[in-house]
Amino acid sequence: MTNAEGMRTQVAIIGAGPAGLLLAHLLAQGGVESVVVETRSEEYVSARIRAGILEHSSVELLESVGLGARLRAEGDQHRGIYLQWPGERHHLDFVDLTGRSVWVYGQTELQKDLVAARTAEVYYEVSDVELDAATGRVQFTDKAGHDIVLDALHIAGCDGSFGPSRNAVPAAQRFEKVYPYSWFGILADVAPSTDELIYAWHPEGFALHSMRSSSVSRFYLQVPNGTDPASWSDDRIWSALATRLGHGQDGWKLNPGPITDKSVLPMRSYVQTPMRHDKLFLAGDAAHIVPPTGAKGLNLAIADVALLSRALISGDERLLASYSDDAQRRVWRCTHFSWWMTTMLHTSGDPFDAELQLSQLRWVTGSRAGSTGLAENYAGLPIGY
Amino acid sequence: MTNAEGMRTQVAIIGAGPAGLLLAHLLAQGGVESVVVETRSEEYVSARIRAGILEHSSVELLESVGLGARLRAEGDQHRGIYLQWPGERHHLDFVDLTGRSVWVYGQTELQKDLVAARTAEVYYEVSDVELDAATGRVQFTDKAGHDIVLDALHIAGCDGSFGPSRNAVPAAQRFEKVYPYSWFGILADVAPSTDELIYAWHPEGFALHSMRSSSVSRFYLQVPNGTDPASWSDDRIWSALATRLGHGQDGWKLNPGPITDKSVLPMRSYVQTPMRHDKLFLAGDAAHIVPPTGAKGLNLAIADVALLSRALISGDERLLASYSDDAQRRVWRCTHFSWWMTTMLHTSGDPFDAELQLSQLRWVTGSRAGSTGLAENYAGLPIGY
Repeated sequence: MTNAEGMRTQVAIIGAGPAGLLLAHLLAQGGVESVVVETRSEEYVSARIRAGILEHSSVELLESVGLGARLRAEGDQHRGIYLQWPGERHHLDFVDLTGRSVWVYGQTELQKDLVAARTAEVYYEVSDVELDAATGRVQFTDKAGHDIVLDALHIAGCDGSFGPSRNAVPAAQRFEKVYPYSWFGILADVAPSTDELIYAWHPEGFALHSMRSSSVSRFYLQVPNGTDPASWSDDRIWSALATRLGHGQDGWKLNPGPITDKSVLPMRSYVQTPMRHDKLFLAGDAAHIVPPTGAKGLNLAIADVALLSRALISGDERLLASYSDDAQRRVWRCTHFSWWMTTMLHTSGDPFDAELQLSQLRWVTGSRAGSTGLAENYAGLPIGY
Repeated sequence: MTNAEGMRTQVAIIGAGPAGLLLAHLLAQGGVESVVVETRSEEYVSARIRAGILEHSSVELLESVGLGARLRAEGDQHRGIYLQWPGERHHLDFVDLTGRSVWVYGQTELQKDLVAARTAEVYYEVSDVELDAATGRVQFTDKAGHDIVLDALHIAGCDGSFGPSRNAVPAAQRFEKVYPYSWFGILADVAPSTDELIYAWHPEGFALHSMRSSSVSRFYLQVPNGTDPASWSDDRIWSALATRLGHGQDGWKLNPGPITDKSVLPMRSYVQTPMRHDKLFLAGDAAHIVPPTGAKGLNLAIADVALLSRALISGDERLLASYSDDAQRRVWRCTHFSWWMTTMLHTSGDPFDAELQLSQLRWVTGSRAGSTGLAENYAGLPIGY
């Protein structure tokens, strides 16, 4: 590379999503300088709709580093969730069961808060990113076409499943499970018909009633893999949601409204170990993917960067060396919980599985131990679990 | 049928195993007369080795009807179980977690107590049993070759998976799941190396250390389906048990001894509904089979006959009509729990499943909610759940 511009920083962060920007923020709080590189535009990253639930520990962490003000003001604290199947709806009160709550606050909002905090230099729309885990060097071409060489003490791969970091860490083991169904996500301009999320088991398939704000509802329907969103008319969507969510049951009503977005999300579990190679550390989706049923993806990324930032700020080689193992315990807890929630709620077509699911749902909602087990996993384990 | 001897009774019970004899005993306590017919000999039924764990509610029930004396004197009360995987062994104390314990008391011992109580006439070694669910008539040939016609108000099918009762109830639904592994059961004349049962997850397969008495140990090893017991030498058995149960771990020792019995048990879950047709009612294995991992088979049969005896003693058609639905709730709870314990502890060969199992085991042993969930299912729900 000739005429390349040279730069130095302490930590080069690949990816300006919530994991990358939060890591930059946490490092800055600890006096560690970082530079972030991102292939997408700032507008694209800020607009993409992803997770919407922050668990207790995530909120505590964000507040502790000055990122809680708007969350508290505009987010929506939920005491728990509803679990239902035809004929029965049960509320699980996480606060009562575990003393912990969750917050509905879209990833887009957290992203705005992180961008507004401006705690690190971010290069958007870069291309040709190359990492060298052995030396800590990151090379890329910036938006204006300049070749840049960034030399760092450490590199943090926060660039998700498709970024270059994942493949720059030789994997000792890769674990993958693809589920035989997808989520059909629907965004609608209508006030939510519920105060808290409804997770619904139904013989025709799982449905979830979530929300983005007091005037925007978010729904998901279990559909076969490969479903074309265009093959579902709005009428069919509202009809399926009404059936699966129990419109008319005990007087509950689902309010339909204009649908503004339809998309189909495949579901898989993926874990790659270790999460470190030389000077390169993986965090969030770069190292693991969970199906969305347990609302764990974003929270797990936050827990990863919390752990990684402590190790990087300390500079203690023992902490850096143990980061991957330390993070794995929570990764597997969340991977198991997400798998458990997913397989308890999605129909497989096997009538035996359906009866096992219903018996499990009755037990989870009817036993304090069962309810607490779900609640403590959903509301989230302490950072450092 | 000519020259047939005619008899009348209130309840004709098919099967003189623990379910049938306990039902006869409970009915007698309620003033209801019954006659029991059994194709096997008294010696055979009394000698066959089956379950060995009685849950809290089973013990309470047996005591309440005068069958608890020898159980209390000779049985062994256990506060809980051990759950382990390589490097870690955890004790789950059911008494601490739920206030309920379990008892180690072989099915053969309970059978002896039931036979000794002699509360109903039992025809052993009968043949050609025919049931008529519509009329309540049971026809059979007795041991001496006499044809007998038994007319009853109701028939109770307590004759297990292979008896005629199951097929005399038209099944609306049959649910079946066959597991891809079997249990290799080993009986050895050696004092148990543990005070309570050890359930061991191991990469080479599940192992269980159980016991029959202070001088007889019972072991199980997960093996592939179709395994020939003769293909395992005693040395290979002790070596596999030592490895999987963690001989040498934290100073724990497995004491080997003379092996007196080897057998391979296939594992499946089976549920048939409804459990009633006209005058015929199914109880225990005649209606459902669970894999042995959760020690639920005998206890579920006891819960069935407790429920059935109440309905039969009351003579209340509403109770008789609701028996099948009332029993199903517990049947599915136990079917789910047995499936859950089985799939948590048996290796499938998939490394992802292994990590999910280990994460679940860590959570079950590390979280009070997780431990309590296992404990309340294992120590058993109240009769009538």
